[in-house]
Amino acid sequence: MRIAIYGYGNLGRGVECATKYHDDAELVAIFTRRAPENVKTVLGAPVYSAERVLEFKDKIDVLILCGGSATDLPEMTPELARHFNVIDSYDTHATIPKHFAAVDKAASESGHVARISAGWDPGLFSIARVYASSAWPCGKDYTFWGRGISQGHSDAIRRIDGVLDARQYTVPVPEAITAVRAGESPELTTRQKHLRECYVVLAEGADAERVEREIKNMPNYFADYDTTVNFITLDELRKNHSGMPHGGSVIRNGKTGFDGEHRHTVEFSLNLDSNPEFTASVLVAYARAVFRLAKKGDVGCKTVLDIAPAELSLMPRKELYAHML
Amino acid sequence: MRIAIYGYGNLGRGVECATKYHDDAELVAIFTRRAPENVKTVLGAPVYSAERVLEFKDKIDVLILCGGSATDLPEMTPELARHFNVIDSYDTHATIPKHFAAVDKAASESGHVARISAGWDPGLFSIARVYASSAWPCGKDYTFWGRGISQGHSDAIRRIDGVLDARQYTVPVPEAITAVRAGESPELTTRQKHLRECYVVLAEGADAERVEREIKNMPNYFADYDTTVNFITLDELRKNHSGMPHGGSVIRNGKTGFDGEHRHTVEFSLNLDSNPEFTASVLVAYARAVFRLAKKGDVGCKTVLDIAPAELSLMPRKELYAHML
Repeated sequence: MRIAIYGYGNLGRGVECATKYHDDAELVAIFTRRAPENVKTVLGAPVYSAERVLEFKDKIDVLILCGGSATDLPEMTPELARHFNVIDSYDTHATIPKHFAAVDKAASESGHVARISAGWDPGLFSIARVYASSAWPCGKDYTFWGRGISQGHSDAIRRIDGVLDARQYTVPVPEAITAVRAGESPELTTRQKHLRECYVVLAEGADAERVEREIKNMPNYFADYDTTVNFITLDELRKNHSGMPHGGSVIRNGKTGFDGEHRHTVEFSLNLDSNPEFTASVLVAYARAVFRLAKKGDVGCKTVLDIAPAELSLMPRKELYAHML
Repeated sequence: MRIAIYGYGNLGRGVECATKYHDDAELVAIFTRRAPENVKTVLGAPVYSAERVLEFKDKIDVLILCGGSATDLPEMTPELARHFNVIDSYDTHATIPKHFAAVDKAASESGHVARISAGWDPGLFSIARVYASSAWPCGKDYTFWGRGISQGHSDAIRRIDGVLDARQYTVPVPEAITAVRAGESPELTTRQKHLRECYVVLAEGADAERVEREIKNMPNYFADYDTTVNFITLDELRKNHSGMPHGGSVIRNGKTGFDGEHRHTVEFSLNLDSNPEFTASVLVAYARAVFRLAKKGDVGCKTVLDIAPAELSLMPRKELYAHML
């Protein structure tokens, strides 16, 4: 399977590294919107200007799109699905149906296969939600994120006047997750589910009290949460908070029996050293499924919910039945 | 979807109860090999002799087979796949390929859809293993069972001379599961992974010391484990150990990064009040997928690895994309 990376940030670097572990994936090219000569890759794959991507039409089986969901992917994925089999990790939950429609139209018209929203949420977490709710229609779902770095919340802090740099950890409230794991089906407010832990480097002369107040009162991002703000030096930030760990749990409390008398708890959880590298690995596995579907003559857009588990595996069906069932 | 239950033990009763929660499932009939007039059902579904099943050929969309894996299903599933769309929970891991071949032949020849080995292990645990190993080829899988009742081990104790009744709990070793959850990829022997906890009621005059010795030295079942034996009264057994709880975890420790420097832990875990009712709920969800595939004209045998998550859901695709991704 010949793959290429379109967009070379943290996620793109993660995909490049993932090809070390996925033996069927040959990395043909990396496309960047920066000047290619200024891009240093991890494994030495060839780098080209994004403008040249169409020259590679017959040399790439699946193009892995590593742009951002806010502004890149809504245009990038439909556009490139006109010329390539593509996969992205579009993660703005509310607008997935719109993105799906645009990509499906482009891929169907051009005869390609596209897969959107692969990763862990949306992605593996979505899959866990569908399995659990399909099997136990009577129940309640919970999603906890963290402990991990939220880029969106870190960026929001950085935009405050007087902030030099910042990292924000999303942390599940321990009492909440314990109650859900015990099958208690609690009703939980936003505040009762997650804490927000901020590490902030101030610019010289900035007013710490004002910055803390601005963070804690920021609507949507922080106002509905118990938020702690820690002021640290740039050195401390670099030393202790430069990684990109994340994780979380999807938990369903379900009931069965004559009168719902038996309780069941189903949990899918992740604990990740590197959020972008993990997401990248999921993308490569789904690129494999895209490649296989395209070879079978399938066209159009699919999501992780439309792909059978066996389609992702390096093992042939017979081996899967013998060793993995 | 018109379903019927073939075999009315704990699992069959679980399927009957599950139809209360799965709104699309109409329970048409229960077939038993006992005298139907002696079978009392939970919800009052009509009971027929198993011999009459072929009279219902056109009245059932999916027949859910609730026999045992040791002797019932190897004959029952291929035989009934000649006349019905069927689903079973065949769970003898080592002989799944043989069972698959027999069922696939019967279903393909007769133009039906069959699904084998649905449940939680094989079943949801198999799915968790395939997702995790497909995305992170570099890693190590662990399966922990319990804390829960093992029917096979309980039966083995009951066969010992002087034992009136018994229950055996399989229990993961806490230190082992903690190390795996921490991503330490430990090497673990059989003894280091699970404990065996036995509750035994002796017949009058039986020699407790001999019974304990026979349990602890029993090859395959107990000799390789740290086993504790507790002698209790029949009343205590009925009061404290009459449920059928079970559960467990599939955990993968995986690596990513330039040099495998980032560790990831992916876990799927279950905590079940009632093992048969949980398995039954999974069977009904997969019956839905069988029904849909049969309507599309598909034939032959499939496993849980061959079915996309969306096929199990009561929600239409559009709703899934909008709310579950």
